[in-house]
Amino acid sequence: MTPVLSKRKPFIHALYASPLSGLQIEAESFKIIDREAPAHSFSPEEWQVVRRMVHTAGDFSILEAVRFSPRAISSAITALREGAPIFTDSNMIRSGLSLARLRAVCGEYDARRLICHVADEDVVEQARMKGLPRSLFAVGKAKPILHRAIAVFGNAPIALMELNRMIMEENIRPAVVVAMPVGFVHVVESKVELMSLDVPYIALDGRRGGSPLAVSVIHALCSLADRKKL
Amino acid sequence: MTPVLSKRKPFIHALYASPLSGLQIEAESFKIIDREAPAHSFSPEEWQVVRRMVHTAGDFSILEAVRFSPRAISSAITALREGAPIFTDSNMIRSGLSLARLRAVCGEYDARRLICHVADEDVVEQARMKGLPRSLFAVGKAKPILHRAIAVFGNAPIALMELNRMIMEENIRPAVVVAMPVGFVHVVESKVELMSLDVPYIALDGRRGGSPLAVSVIHALCSLADRKKL
Repeated sequence: MTPVLSKRKPFIHALYASPLSGLQIEAESFKIIDREAPAHSFSPEEWQVVRRMVHTAGDFSILEAVRFSPRAISSAITALREGAPIFTDSNMIRSGLSLARLRAVCGEYDARRLICHVADEDVVEQARMKGLPRSLFAVGKAKPILHRAIAVFGNAPIALMELNRMIMEENIRPAVVVAMPVGFVHVVESKVELMSLDVPYIALDGRRGGSPLAVSVIHALCSLADRKKL
Repeated sequence: MTPVLSKRKPFIHALYASPLSGLQIEAESFKIIDREAPAHSFSPEEWQVVRRMVHTAGDFSILEAVRFSPRAISSAITALREGAPIFTDSNMIRSGLSLARLRAVCGEYDARRLICHVADEDVVEQARMKGLPRSLFAVGKAKPILHRAIAVFGNAPIALMELNRMIMEENIRPAVVVAMPVGFVHVVESKVELMSLDVPYIALDGRRGGSPLAVSVIHALCSLADRKKL
């Protein structure tokens, strides 16, 4: 498996000799994934999402943990086509989302439709005063836009739990919830709770998750939304 | 293992009843990690880095893949204290790095010392014209600052390979290379090549990696640099 190192001839020379673009490398990656993927029972559309997650994780073991609610993909595609606001729980997700991909689905997407309040001064100040995580106040501040929005979590289980509460107590219904907070405290519970609710979701069960996985889900949904239009 | 859902009482109510700050939750996470961690042979300092990576991944299996060169941590700490520029291969890493943590180590850190060229117009244009990945030209553009810099890769194996070439052919020596590109094409080779070179590195062997893991390494190094000062 380990590549043999030739005597001090840099690997990159091979790429200079036979250039490959980023898109060509991505296509090659997807070929490898399809070839090596274990058996699974995802629908063809779900697989488009899962294989992009595998591509992002470099790891097939996440396959076992991906969960879709029945209406998740169709609801997400409709929302993307309508230019629904995208709430993110971290600035890493916000900066990872490709406006070019979003605009290919709906021309109205711009940076202002990608909403992340976790570093806002008022949010930081509230968190400091109350001794609670910033992510809690960040999702609270976004409440006016969360109904029918695309809500994306790659970090903060507390924020997801607060959204769960809004769904349960305030009848807020996002178009889809991408539920991929990561870690050891509150994380499993936040996802189990979400998956018990009547709302479209794409989740990674267990402790794993993260911003790049959450971003990859949105980008896969953009490809599906863009392709189905044709 | 699965938490029992009480009848429609949101989990978040428990947090409102007994508030925990983000820092307290982080401390609780590290307690769980130390309790559940399998046996390993990392030094105490290396373990500070690895446990933050585990925290970020929500996954103990990365333990087996983390590699340190002997001088990596001391060289990284010296560089951070000197305010060495930090090259990143993605804007996600750049936006994930905490200036507050960096400034706690060296007051001279500001956004201009975090260098990412992957979305620069000239880089995008070069990539388009030559049919090669943008990350290649992004690392090329950073060449004047890479010697003695902290070089962080969480995405682009091609960029890491180009840095490897600079190390081999142009005698450029970063203070430390954090090598965590992720994926199925060029990734394994880029890391194996780096680890064959005489340069301090912290790497995640194999296909896994990603921006959050790379960020977690830098943040752990900041904690070490900050603590050892006392």
